[in-house]
Amino acid sequence: MIKIRTDLALENRQMYKENQGGEAPGILMKQRQHGGMRVTEIHVMDQRGSQALEKPPGRYITIEMPPVNEMGGAMKQACADLLARQLGKLLEVGKDSKILIIGLGNHNITPDALGPKTAGRILVTRHRFLLLDQKENGKLTNVSVITPGVMGNTGIESLDLIKGVTRQIGPDAVIAIDALAARSMDRITTTIQLCDTGISPGAGVGNLRRGINRETLGVKVIGIGVPTVISAASIVEDYMGEGVFPDFEELLRQEREVSEDMIVTPGNIDAVIDAFSVILSRGINQAIHPQLTKEELEEYLS
Amino acid sequence: MIKIRTDLALENRQMYKENQGGEAPGILMKQRQHGGMRVTEIHVMDQRGSQALEKPPGRYITIEMPPVNEMGGAMKQACADLLARQLGKLLEVGKDSKILIIGLGNHNITPDALGPKTAGRILVTRHRFLLLDQKENGKLTNVSVITPGVMGNTGIESLDLIKGVTRQIGPDAVIAIDALAARSMDRITTTIQLCDTGISPGAGVGNLRRGINRETLGVKVIGIGVPTVISAASIVEDYMGEGVFPDFEELLRQEREVSEDMIVTPGNIDAVIDAFSVILSRGINQAIHPQLTKEELEEYLS
Amino acid sequence: MIKIRTDLALENRQMYKENQGGEAPGILMKQRQHGGMRVTEIHVMDQRGSQALEKPPGRYITIEMPPVNEMGGAMKQACADLLARQLGKLLEVGKDSKILIIGLGNHNITPDALGPKTAGRILVTRHRFLLLDQKENGKLTNVSVITPGVMGNTGIESLDLIKGVTRQIGPDAVIAIDALAARSMDRITTTIQLCDTGISPGAGVGNLRRGINRETLGVKVIGIGVPTVISAASIVEDYMGEGVFPDFEELLRQEREVSEDMIVTPGNIDAVIDAFSVILSRGINQAIHPQLTKEELEEYLS
Amino acid sequence: MIKIRTDLALENRQMYKENQGGEAPGILMKQRQHGGMRVTEIHVMDQRGSQALEKPPGRYITIEMPPVNEMGGAMKQACADLLARQLGKLLEVGKDSKILIIGLGNHNITPDALGPKTAGRILVTRHRFLLLDQKENGKLTNVSVITPGVMGNTGIESLDLIKGVTRQIGPDAVIAIDALAARSMDRITTTIQLCDTGISPGAGVGNLRRGINRETLGVKVIGIGVPTVISAASIVEDYMGEGVFPDFEELLRQEREVSEDMIVTPGNIDAVIDAFSVILSRGINQAIHPQLTKEELEEYLS
Repeated sequence: MIKIRTDLALENRQMYKENQGGEAPGILMKQRQHGGMRVTEIHVMDQRGSQALEKPPGRYITIEMPPVNEMGGAMKQACADLLARQLGKLLEVGKDSKILIIGLGNHNITPDALGPKTAGRILVTRHRFLLLDQKENGKLTNVSVITPGVMGNTGIESLDLIKGVTRQIGPDAVIAIDALAARSMDRITTTIQLCDTGISPGAGVGNLRRGINRETLGVKVIGIGVPTVISAASIVEDYMGEGVFPDFEELLRQEREVSEDMIVTPGNIDAVIDAFSVILSRGINQAIHPQLTKEELEEYLS
Repeated sequence: MIKIRTDLALENRQMYKENQGGEAPGILMKQRQHGGMRVTEIHVMDQRGSQALEKPPGRYITIEMPPVNEMGGAMKQACADLLARQLGKLLEVGKDSKILIIGLGNHNITPDALGPKTAGRILVTRHRFLLLDQKENGKLTNVSVITPGVMGNTGIESLDLIKGVTRQIGPDAVIAIDALAARSMDRITTTIQLCDTGISPGAGVGNLRRGINRETLGVKVIGIGVPTVISAASIVEDYMGEGVFPDFEELLRQEREVSEDMIVTPGNIDAVIDAFSVILSRGINQAIHPQLTKEELEEYLS
Repeated sequence: MIKIRTDLALENRQMYKENQGGEAPGILMKQRQHGGMRVTEIHVMDQRGSQALEKPPGRYITIEMPPVNEMGGAMKQACADLLARQLGKLLEVGKDSKILIIGLGNHNITPDALGPKTAGRILVTRHRFLLLDQKENGKLTNVSVITPGVMGNTGIESLDLIKGVTRQIGPDAVIAIDALAARSMDRITTTIQLCDTGISPGAGVGNLRRGINRETLGVKVIGIGVPTVISAASIVEDYMGEGVFPDFEELLRQEREVSEDMIVTPGNIDAVIDAFSVILSRGINQAIHPQLTKEELEEYLS
Repeated sequence: MIKIRTDLALENRQMYKENQGGEAPGILMKQRQHGGMRVTEIHVMDQRGSQALEKPPGRYITIEMPPVNEMGGAMKQACADLLARQLGKLLEVGKDSKILIIGLGNHNITPDALGPKTAGRILVTRHRFLLLDQKENGKLTNVSVITPGVMGNTGIESLDLIKGVTRQIGPDAVIAIDALAARSMDRITTTIQLCDTGISPGAGVGNLRRGINRETLGVKVIGIGVPTVISAASIVEDYMGEGVFPDFEELLRQEREVSEDMIVTPGNIDAVIDAFSVILSRGINQAIHPQLTKEELEEYLS
């Protein structure tokens, strides 16, 4: 069996099926259509499911949609609405909760800038609570944001910085946004994944070493990710189809080393990242400030 | 007596003399020339000195030099060398210490971007120690960097973020870099202040509320600041000289409100900030990595 | 008589009245209220008016409004609508015209970044006409954008670059956006000026030497400006009122030199520039693409 | 025969040899070692050579060196020196010439930002000649810089903008810097190509349609390029070796469409671009200001 890394539970499940010829054990899966978009919820129930999908047990929600760079404004809003509903289900926190948003990734590398870019569009409010020294602030939820950057620039592992801040400000839930790696080219520009298991080691272009999750932070961590790159190894396999190569495994063994150094991404990745950061930030803002109307949200953000 | 805010101990001492007609009590002061530059060390000894200069007790070192935008490369290096020596005296930590550098300020407002810009040029090494899982790493000191941003964008007070990180990574000393406010126009482009009392509330354009110092962080905090703005109130007084106005106090009372909203800065402030970030980062890198030659430093940074 | 430089025709007219005790000759002036905003149109009719207001003969429209950083989204849209109507009157070109937008200023200096920031939000379409090799393109107008930068970085005077591009692509009208200098603090955050005389020498923080207008470009040039700085000289006078100083003229003579080097700007100038770039770009987009509904505009830009 | 696009004459010549089993006709080739680097000069003599290498007739100089991200400062300087010498040979203009530098590419997409980044480090001097209104200025050459951006943002084809500026300021020679596409992964981080045929259509990630060369601009155009991406098509072939696929041509036909949309680039591309922009700008500065010592250059640039 050949293993190719992807951050998408959906792709891992598909690969399992292709390679094993049957549904992965220990998982539950639901799919629904929502006006041109599809929502797939995979519940990894136990260790068997975890092993089959190479993901920690938990809920993985994937939203599939038309290419984001071809979407008009109305479709983007519909997509943000759908994201907001799914995120709301995972968050399960009330309006009086304190939420910390984390924009992971390197803002200097275009396909890895999704986290920082999205973080920059969040309606941040914690300082309003501080200035007025109160726990309540009308319809607003208490929200703060950090963008930990990359270890090569700061010398500090993202998890260490996040742990320090989490301990200092005590959020009830953390939402971590990251760029992901996918196995198939079609995924780029069309997929959002949410999960309640946080961010797993090695995800995306970033340099994370340890997971950002309830185990390491002590509070609920929702991960929101968008595939923006594929590995060099994957791109080869996509074209190969099944069985063309006699020495397929050997080939991929060589590729694995390459794939650590090379990323594949659309040529218009700057526009793609920009579009996704709009959709993600809208969906997140709607979910974390549930008492605000869209008009009020826009007033605050404009 | 009229009080005008400045972040420079040197200017406060000068104002005290002008207003009171004598040397401020409770301070010691030394001045030396260094090839076209002047170093003034003011030691605020006790509460009397602290009240007279409106500064916490401690050591304040001011480097005065020719306008930074007219300096050539050799003079800049001489200035960095002088800064490195003065910083070394205040730091008093060995090569095996762990140092955390903090770039304060808002990178989106040109005169407030000095901290983040300087931080971006520091030789960061902590991750090398982590990756190799060792306490020693040849000639390198263990250095990390954060740029906490501004509360309006993150919802998190700089001090909270710094506290969280400090507790998490346990540095032996902290160096905080910030843009300052001065009282006199001439100060902009010609002055660097170092002190062992950290960053005091209300300094610079930033939005700091509480001090960043040994009391709040639990470790030694060196503050390095450069005046990049003056308050609108100050600029009026500079032109007025002494006693021209009958209603001077009333005038300044009005101005004080204005000065919170307005900043005065050179038209070429982007070049000034750029030049200072080169000088500061060089001086700091030399002081924190004392075992590296300048050539080795450049190799690491290039 | 003391002269203080401002780029606003409205302020020059006011100064003339204050200093001369009567209305300036050779001008026509109209004022109307528009739901919390005021539109003043000053028509400089002849050389007498031009001398009195230190502005070339032409039409100067000033929109005064509440502070832009306190505005909600609805008020911003109302302001953009008003700007679009006024701009439409000055442009007087049909949908089939070719329009070149110029974002003047230095994107590295916050208060001077208005031109480049606004230019970045314009609905650019010229390449769609090129790709399809047609003169007509549905409801879209043929629009291109340049941001010439500053001479210190490019070695090229803005006017030279604009002339070269204008000759090459042959627009029917040019719209030049620039940051301006005002005399009074209140102007910053509350004023937009439009005129059909282009950009006059020495305006704003920039380094323009010659005017950008019909004489130098050979086509109609609309100037759109927002005061984002005041000169150091102006700030002193604002506080002085009339006649306080015995040696007022001497004082201002000294200040004039200073004012070339110093700029005064609000501390939150980054948010102010951001808000104005949204209002300006919306108003301009509505005026240059008159056949698009606001919803269609948003679809194109999202 | 299968054709895979590369911007490197060196790779095209190698492919010709592999596919045809002999040296390409109509070319001259020289190779020399320079302390760890290799310089290959390919002279495309006539139409046969042009057809064989798919390049216009002219001189193509390739510098091959160790990976730029592993180089120390001394090696970088040696590389810049070598580049300066090769560029000097192609430029063949005296110190009194006027030179226009063009930084092609999109500064928002990391691997395409090489041109703008390098342009930002050039010693620009034309405005000094303008201000003093003189043709001579000590040891300095008359140098200006533009970064035309991408058509999607400006609506203006790079060539149109460059033509307009060239006609307006009349340079004696143009140097155009661009990111290139290579066929082999090893090329990224190790290769610089210079040529006297300018920039050919379709090079790099950019959106150029027509060549930037003596035919279109009327003056000598030197192209300087660095491969920063490979096409998705190329990466597959690299792994395939020779003859593995039965349906190889069909496969590549499909890939060609993909490769227009996908780019492959190193994960640390931001550091790679940064390092190359330092080397390129140093080499160019040394070549265009031949009368300045390296120390004087640094004085001007610091």
